[in-house]
Amino acid sequence: MIKTSGYAAFNSTGPLAPFEFTRREPKPNDILIEIDYCGVCHSDIHQVKNEWGNATFPMVPGHEIVGHVTKIGSNVSKFIVGDLAGVGCLVDSCRTCANCKEGFQQFCENGSVGTYNSLEKDGVTRTYGGYSKCIVVSEDFALKIPTNLDLKTVAPLLCAGITTYSPLRHWGVGPGQKVGVVGLGGLGHMAVKFAHSFGATVTVFSRSISKKEDALRLGASEMAITTNPEKILETHAGKFDFIIDTVSAPHDLNLYLQFLKRDGKMVLVGLPNVPPHIEVGNLIFGRKTLAGSLIGGIPETQEMLDYCGKHNIGCDIELIAPSRINEAFERTLNSDVKYRFVLDMKS
Amino acid sequence: MIKTSGYAAFNSTGPLAPFEFTRREPKPNDILIEIDYCGVCHSDIHQVKNEWGNATFPMVPGHEIVGHVTKIGSNVSKFIVGDLAGVGCLVDSCRTCANCKEGFQQFCENGSVGTYNSLEKDGVTRTYGGYSKCIVVSEDFALKIPTNLDLKTVAPLLCAGITTYSPLRHWGVGPGQKVGVVGLGGLGHMAVKFAHSFGATVTVFSRSISKKEDALRLGASEMAITTNPEKILETHAGKFDFIIDTVSAPHDLNLYLQFLKRDGKMVLVGLPNVPPHIEVGNLIFGRKTLAGSLIGGIPETQEMLDYCGKHNIGCDIELIAPSRINEAFERTLNSDVKYRFVLDMKS
Repeated sequence: MIKTSGYAAFNSTGPLAPFEFTRREPKPNDILIEIDYCGVCHSDIHQVKNEWGNATFPMVPGHEIVGHVTKIGSNVSKFIVGDLAGVGCLVDSCRTCANCKEGFQQFCENGSVGTYNSLEKDGVTRTYGGYSKCIVVSEDFALKIPTNLDLKTVAPLLCAGITTYSPLRHWGVGPGQKVGVVGLGGLGHMAVKFAHSFGATVTVFSRSISKKEDALRLGASEMAITTNPEKILETHAGKFDFIIDTVSAPHDLNLYLQFLKRDGKMVLVGLPNVPPHIEVGNLIFGRKTLAGSLIGGIPETQEMLDYCGKHNIGCDIELIAPSRINEAFERTLNSDVKYRFVLDMKS
Repeated sequence: MIKTSGYAAFNSTGPLAPFEFTRREPKPNDILIEIDYCGVCHSDIHQVKNEWGNATFPMVPGHEIVGHVTKIGSNVSKFIVGDLAGVGCLVDSCRTCANCKEGFQQFCENGSVGTYNSLEKDGVTRTYGGYSKCIVVSEDFALKIPTNLDLKTVAPLLCAGITTYSPLRHWGVGPGQKVGVVGLGGLGHMAVKFAHSFGATVTVFSRSISKKEDALRLGASEMAITTNPEKILETHAGKFDFIIDTVSAPHDLNLYLQFLKRDGKMVLVGLPNVPPHIEVGNLIFGRKTLAGSLIGGIPETQEMLDYCGKHNIGCDIELIAPSRINEAFERTLNSDVKYRFVLDMKS
């Protein structure tokens, strides 16, 4: 066993605090990663507060992990010691169902293994995430990291990056298209970067005019303030090919459905805890689509990282010491971060 | 002016009764159709009862019209006197917007002209529908009718047929696919016929076991009773490529979303007057789509009729005299028709 340490939640209401625990020795297909950086995802907060109802403690959050390989198992072929490596939301799956075989491990029919707050396939070993010094993972669920990027800006690509890249690719966003991004946070700012990079014309929908300068800097052509729905409808109704909605807080989806053109598509990547109402006429008139998307499989996550390396895309981040994690949670809840906290696990 | 007669509603609560009115003389691009048959669509009842809030009276309903051409304008090229002709839900549109130019007249950006309870493009002339002896319509909005079909079974194709044909075609339903049809009424029974004809394996979801024999006769492989959601989920969760939901009455869409496979699509063609709740997790987990579809444009309606001629597909109907229209409305409201009333306008 490998002794390590990190930050854990010990119950659903208290702060995170230092925690000592062990990782398994690498098995033949495993790699040991010394973690350099780990992003702070809003879902870490949901999990720690047990807002999804399945929390187990102590819980070491973190699924936006990058670091260096320091040890490899005897059968490892994808990595050598010294390589950069990343881990996202998943560390295993059944590997045999139709979805796994097609590379959609996030939809494993037998249940994928989350990077933390989950059980390994043995059914008993708990998983601990990236708010820690090291992690041991099968090379099949580890990602190759482009060497030309600023490593700390890569960490959040493992969740915020793939969550937005995947639907934009799946629904074929590209040149000549008008794309809306709802919400400019960790996910939204990456959606703007990708959609712009794919050649689309991007509008950011936000309640906060203060983000306009950032929206334009990130690649948007315009910012639309949503506080006056009637006015915004007048300008934008029927204009958009594709809208990606990154907002988890309850909000009216019907407004955005009206922004779509005929055959337009709106995709949700946030999970509101109150089920939204849909005016069915907003789908029927114009043959419109409302869909959902969940992170991405391992092959597409690798594709996204390679794309980011080629096009020099990283996240906009604020680097902090792990000891400030509770402050980072507070500020994330207040949307007071541009646009992702990243823990400096070497500090 | 051409004197004619039909059945009209004179207010939103009373019965339909005989009504005398006039049609315009055919203009150069118009044809005069002596109506043989007109289908009774559930939306005729919504309109007459002013349930969509835009009723004007007297109202002559009817948008599933077939008959014979008895007079043509000087520029008409598609029809000669004696031809069969049909009229569906639309009799005109702006013809210049992007949707019209692409053949999607049902989504005309400047407002299409409904076959009844609408205003012609002159902004003043009211339109009257097919519960009448004749109709005058631009040849551009008249359909050619295959001569090999039993004419009275063709009438409901103009609405019930195209409403189900269009989404099944648009989303590429075909061999090897598992398709669900929710509701076995006027729309549902045509969805079963088309999906089966396109090579899919069809399951009918209904509350009523009494329809099982019919479902199988129409082309379904099985009938699933929806009165016990837990049991039906056990059997059908994650199994369907495509579901077409033809039910207008409020019902839980989340049950059906769970029947879809990864990347499965559910399309609504009914318009519930209570906006449904969507559990967003049912879209996100499995990258599923909820969409809507509205009748079809003129080119696709013609394609559908041609397909029906080639494959000998008509609607299952119950032929009645127009004088029994009020009884037909009552029985339609009670789902007591297999599967569409058609008025015999020659009787």
